[in-house]
Amino acid sequence: MGASVALRSRHGLLLCLLQLVFIGLFAALAVYHPDADETRTVYHPDADETRTGHGDHETTSDGAAHSRIYPMFQDVHVMIFIGFGFLMTFLKRYGLSSVSVNFLVAGLVLEWAILVNGLFHLHHGKIQVDANSLLGADFTAAAVLISFGVVLGKTSPSQLIVMALLEVPIFVINEVIGRKYLMVTDMGDSMFVHAFGAYFGLAVSFVLYRKDSDSDNAGSSSNSDLFSMIGTLFLWCFWPSFNSALAVGDDQHRAVINTYLSLAASCVTTFAVSALFHRQGKFTMEHVQNATLAGGVAIGTAADMAVQPVGALIVGTIAGAISVVGFEKITPALAKHCRVHDTCGVHNLHGLPGVLAGVVGAVLAALATEEQYHSSLYVLFPAMAPASNSSSWEQLPPEWGVAAGSGRSAAAQGGMQMLALVISLIIGVLGGALTGLIMRLKCWDQLQTEDLFSDRRFFVVHCEDEPEVPRSGHTEEPDTRL
Amino acid sequence: MGASVALRSRHGLLLCLLQLVFIGLFAALAVYHPDADETRTVYHPDADETRTGHGDHETTSDGAAHSRIYPMFQDVHVMIFIGFGFLMTFLKRYGLSSVSVNFLVAGLVLEWAILVNGLFHLHHGKIQVDANSLLGADFTAAAVLISFGVVLGKTSPSQLIVMALLEVPIFVINEVIGRKYLMVTDMGDSMFVHAFGAYFGLAVSFVLYRKDSDSDNAGSSSNSDLFSMIGTLFLWCFWPSFNSALAVGDDQHRAVINTYLSLAASCVTTFAVSALFHRQGKFTMEHVQNATLAGGVAIGTAADMAVQPVGALIVGTIAGAISVVGFEKITPALAKHCRVHDTCGVHNLHGLPGVLAGVVGAVLAALATEEQYHSSLYVLFPAMAPASNSSSWEQLPPEWGVAAGSGRSAAAQGGMQMLALVISLIIGVLGGALTGLIMRLKCWDQLQTEDLFSDRRFFVVHCEDEPEVPRSGHTEEPDTRL
Amino acid sequence: MGASVALRSRHGLLLCLLQLVFIGLFAALAVYHPDADETRTVYHPDADETRTGHGDHETTSDGAAHSRIYPMFQDVHVMIFIGFGFLMTFLKRYGLSSVSVNFLVAGLVLEWAILVNGLFHLHHGKIQVDANSLLGADFTAAAVLISFGVVLGKTSPSQLIVMALLEVPIFVINEVIGRKYLMVTDMGDSMFVHAFGAYFGLAVSFVLYRKDSDSDNAGSSSNSDLFSMIGTLFLWCFWPSFNSALAVGDDQHRAVINTYLSLAASCVTTFAVSALFHRQGKFTMEHVQNATLAGGVAIGTAADMAVQPVGALIVGTIAGAISVVGFEKITPALAKHCRVHDTCGVHNLHGLPGVLAGVVGAVLAALATEEQYHSSLYVLFPAMAPASNSSSWEQLPPEWGVAAGSGRSAAAQGGMQMLALVISLIIGVLGGALTGLIMRLKCWDQLQTEDLFSDRRFFVVHCEDEPEVPRSGHTEEPDTRL
Repeated sequence: MGASVALRSRHGLLLCLLQLVFIGLFAALAVYHPDADETRTVYHPDADETRTGHGDHETTSDGAAHSRIYPMFQDVHVMIFIGFGFLMTFLKRYGLSSVSVNFLVAGLVLEWAILVNGLFHLHHGKIQVDANSLLGADFTAAAVLISFGVVLGKTSPSQLIVMALLEVPIFVINEVIGRKYLMVTDMGDSMFVHAFGAYFGLAVSFVLYRKDSDSDNAGSSSNSDLFSMIGTLFLWCFWPSFNSALAVGDDQHRAVINTYLSLAASCVTTFAVSALFHRQGKFTMEHVQNATLAGGVAIGTAADMAVQPVGALIVGTIAGAISVVGFEKITPALAKHCRVHDTCGVHNLHGLPGVLAGVVGAVLAALATEEQYHSSLYVLFPAMAPASNSSSWEQLPPEWGVAAGSGRSAAAQGGMQMLALVISLIIGVLGGALTGLIMRLKCWDQLQTEDLFSDRRFFVVHCEDEPEVPRSGHTEEPDTRL
Repeated sequence: MGASVALRSRHGLLLCLLQLVFIGLFAALAVYHPDADETRTVYHPDADETRTGHGDHETTSDGAAHSRIYPMFQDVHVMIFIGFGFLMTFLKRYGLSSVSVNFLVAGLVLEWAILVNGLFHLHHGKIQVDANSLLGADFTAAAVLISFGVVLGKTSPSQLIVMALLEVPIFVINEVIGRKYLMVTDMGDSMFVHAFGAYFGLAVSFVLYRKDSDSDNAGSSSNSDLFSMIGTLFLWCFWPSFNSALAVGDDQHRAVINTYLSLAASCVTTFAVSALFHRQGKFTMEHVQNATLAGGVAIGTAADMAVQPVGALIVGTIAGAISVVGFEKITPALAKHCRVHDTCGVHNLHGLPGVLAGVVGAVLAALATEEQYHSSLYVLFPAMAPASNSSSWEQLPPEWGVAAGSGRSAAAQGGMQMLALVISLIIGVLGGALTGLIMRLKCWDQLQTEDLFSDRRFFVVHCEDEPEVPRSGHTEEPDTRL
Repeated sequence: MGASVALRSRHGLLLCLLQLVFIGLFAALAVYHPDADETRTVYHPDADETRTGHGDHETTSDGAAHSRIYPMFQDVHVMIFIGFGFLMTFLKRYGLSSVSVNFLVAGLVLEWAILVNGLFHLHHGKIQVDANSLLGADFTAAAVLISFGVVLGKTSPSQLIVMALLEVPIFVINEVIGRKYLMVTDMGDSMFVHAFGAYFGLAVSFVLYRKDSDSDNAGSSSNSDLFSMIGTLFLWCFWPSFNSALAVGDDQHRAVINTYLSLAASCVTTFAVSALFHRQGKFTMEHVQNATLAGGVAIGTAADMAVQPVGALIVGTIAGAISVVGFEKITPALAKHCRVHDTCGVHNLHGLPGVLAGVVGAVLAALATEEQYHSSLYVLFPAMAPASNSSSWEQLPPEWGVAAGSGRSAAAQGGMQMLALVISLIIGVLGGALTGLIMRLKCWDQLQTEDLFSDRRFFVVHCEDEPEVPRSGHTEEPDTRL
């Protein structure tokens, strides 16, 4: 009884405490961005300020800026809560937990990410909250939810809250390194969200490895597979918004086209390869639910680059194929030989395609020329703009409105892109391993074997849903409510 | 047999009749708004006309006005049909009815509300239909669907049709009193839709009270809980559109930010408090499905006011907490002591948070100053604009384009906001009680105990779905189709 | 074993091959539209070029064109993948196949349709890909998915791939005949997508007729009916976007209003007539899932015409009623007397309402006057613009910016609209019959009786989902994965 009170207090009290801390931090730090506030003088971004993250794109004083990104923001919002939430309901006895804990973790990260992102982009000591902050928080939530997919069904709410709290600052630091210091581009966040989130989660899973993960509960049913398709299809439909929300003009148009084509290619390829892997040519739902989306990840970094339609198709085709191969060959091998159990196959949807995206982006960057991109070149790669004291700076058409850069060569930009990828993987793995160690502490409710992949431990479920006989210790007593 | 023919004719014939009446009324009264009609001279709204409801916001002659609100309109549309529809599928034997009857009632209200809203805003004797009319009809449908949630599973289609017909004009009268005569603001319609709809439904439920409402069918299963989450998450994601669709510029931006933050806070708080209420720290799906949304309601009235980010967090936190407490303590008490059975816990999601919203709005209004809002002050609170013969009127910067008001003080505005809330509650309760009395008439198919919360009575269901043995009188005969 | 290898290679290899062919064709033909490409000179559409399809609307050089249609494009995208996909999950043992094969077929068509549409609108030998190409491909996918609904559960993946490949060029030819040569308008594609797709599918079904289609599996359950409602409601909510995505200004506004009203009317009418058809006044889910949408189809051709609000209501009311009657009377008769089995009742949702739409459009066109539409008349019906050498051409206000037409009379335009409808039906039926003959070839995996309407044959399903005892030949062996 003492134990269960202590237990009860664990995640409930932790969440109460966090909410109070968030309120305190918002009170101390957060104000509306001038775009959302009549009382403040209009903000003029310093001309020499470098863009360092999604948080400070779009720092114009145009009051209508938010309504331009709003429809795409809403698409991304649906991806986070419906897309990720339902994608994970494929487990037959863990649907309520999947969609609800996804909801909790995402909601928590929205608040936390606005604070942490904002701390890296303070204006006069204040965090300016605008529509871009909200969108940036959603992107941050995506990274955490990807990591969550690896450990789905094997962690308690307390452990996940700890993971979310630790992953957000590590995510932000990695993104600042990439965008601000290495000055790389990653429009669809394939390196900073997908690859980072996947390897972070895999490292957590490695540290938390337990031999009993092969539970009977860890499967799907036709019904749970159908719920999962809700998530898949919303992710698939809205992915072009994810990859283009922060691009502008022609670049945005290209990002939409490239993502659409890459997704169509990975859809078709997934079905093709899935059938080839089965003796009777049957399709496997796990592939349909996940590998069809790999094209969206794999085109992410280069989404706004001039890969040409055929380039997008090729990237999507390769991504779909390697993702199915990953499910069939790599995920079982990781579990068997590397002590890494990956519940959702995150490595195949976000890990491998994320790495592919980084490489594609680096190659495209290394090949980029002013002939090919005109003024867009310096929007995509600001560091490639000539230095203000160089002769090429003088020759730029003034109407392009280019900010001076450092005259970085295309090859150097490609190298920096590769470096950002490698750093993301390293920070992801090390950050995940460290986070996993903290999650292993006894104080955060470790799950017992019988509670793996089961809603019973943390959700009130009804007897009739449960085919098994009630187990001792977890029978739903009529008097358990206060 | 005679009985069943009479019965058959009841709601089918009623709907046929209504549809013919609607066609007649549309033929007599409805025309396109000039924005949607090349043949009519461009409409110039009378400069001295007061805004009195959603129906006549945006009476500009700008042909692109509709495309500006269209994305937000679509979000609201999804909330009404998918959001409310699936939210109510949590009942394990009443899913088809929940989503289908929600669909029917909403479709019916769209037609009826365009007429009734339009009658209060006639132009030269005609109802001008434009995108704002459609959006206004959707908001009206929300109020009716909220009331529907209270009596879900306990009413026949005929009774619900009667309720919809009566509630729409009462709703419109209340809104006109508030917006036109009291000149209050309620951007997210928390007083006029949420609080009104909730107390209207509770009063209906009180009048229709029956002791047998505690049916075995009145529970959820894991599967129905999962369907319900589809509704929850679409409502949660699109709520910022609900609260900001009719705001403009900076005010709209602020409404998006405030609603997003309030919802995130009520999400986290709901999980926290839900776990604290359970001995083993388990989460209850009823809370997750409903209380997470309370922040959207509670910030509604003040959504476009300058509550600051921390204010939005605090409102959402309080709303989530009182909503969970409501489910645990107040709903059972209402059923036990007050003869009010509330199937969906509408009181906790729309009632209490709606009242909170009204109070928050009144306080914010009482504190509003020109220093804080600049010209927006008179957009938010037109009555606070100086009278045209006053000295302060002279001092207003002409570029603000403010229409003359009555020089109402901030304190008076706050008082008017409170008054509007109280009037909404009174009209809701009295209107609901009257409507309930009419719904009790024998002519509108009262449900028998065995038909409570069951799809069987009004939907063709398949035997294999039904675990019980067929009951006499309701067996599906092979020859029941004409 | 040899058979199963051959079988495995069928659709898997076919898809692989197609994907390679697509990549080759995209490499040879596809480039970005100048709107998405900095490197190409801005495209100036030839002033005398006639609009011939969705593919080349909007060929402006305005870089922001894509962002204007993007929100509506996303709505259509959701309709194709979520809407159609889940609508078809009503079959109780065929849900995974419905949503997944819908996904596969749609993905395949997106790639193929961009190529085929593009071939009819080449610019300097290249297919220019832009947001309109993507939207056009989605519309094309709708036609194929409508046909797919007729043969749902009775065809193998290979057969469906063949159908998709053949239907796309036939669809495009029919649309080019209608739009380019007959110069008719069909804003919501009711003739070119709905009627064409329905009769194409019905002809395929006639040719593939098999007596054993009346399988036990061919029914729904409450659970599958609920999944299906996800599709219905997204289609219903987003249909105004389908019917207005390519309209502009006032015309677009009108298309939104008309579609919304027509859908509301068909929703209410469907419930009314469905109840009247049942002795106990029960509603039938098949009607709710489908006939409620008939108003969207039936108003499609005339969506942007001045039917007035009451006209839209009347069209929707008639459409809902005939659709329910179709389900009750015509579909069974077609199956019994005409050897046409229609799994989803496509004839009632897309066939009859599509024909109604064409007739309504023709009547409205025959009644159209310049008094009624002003300059919009010549946007809607370009052929009705005066010839450049006529006297009426001189009298047109130059600010209308009308392109010269052929001075076609309103009556002649009405006749052309009827002709386009008839041609669509003829090409649909003949094309479908031809396609059906090719689909009957033994090489494309014909289904055995036991595999009708069952996921088991082409999807890996889990034993616990299956109530029946495993059948020989289809038991899931543990070693079937490579």
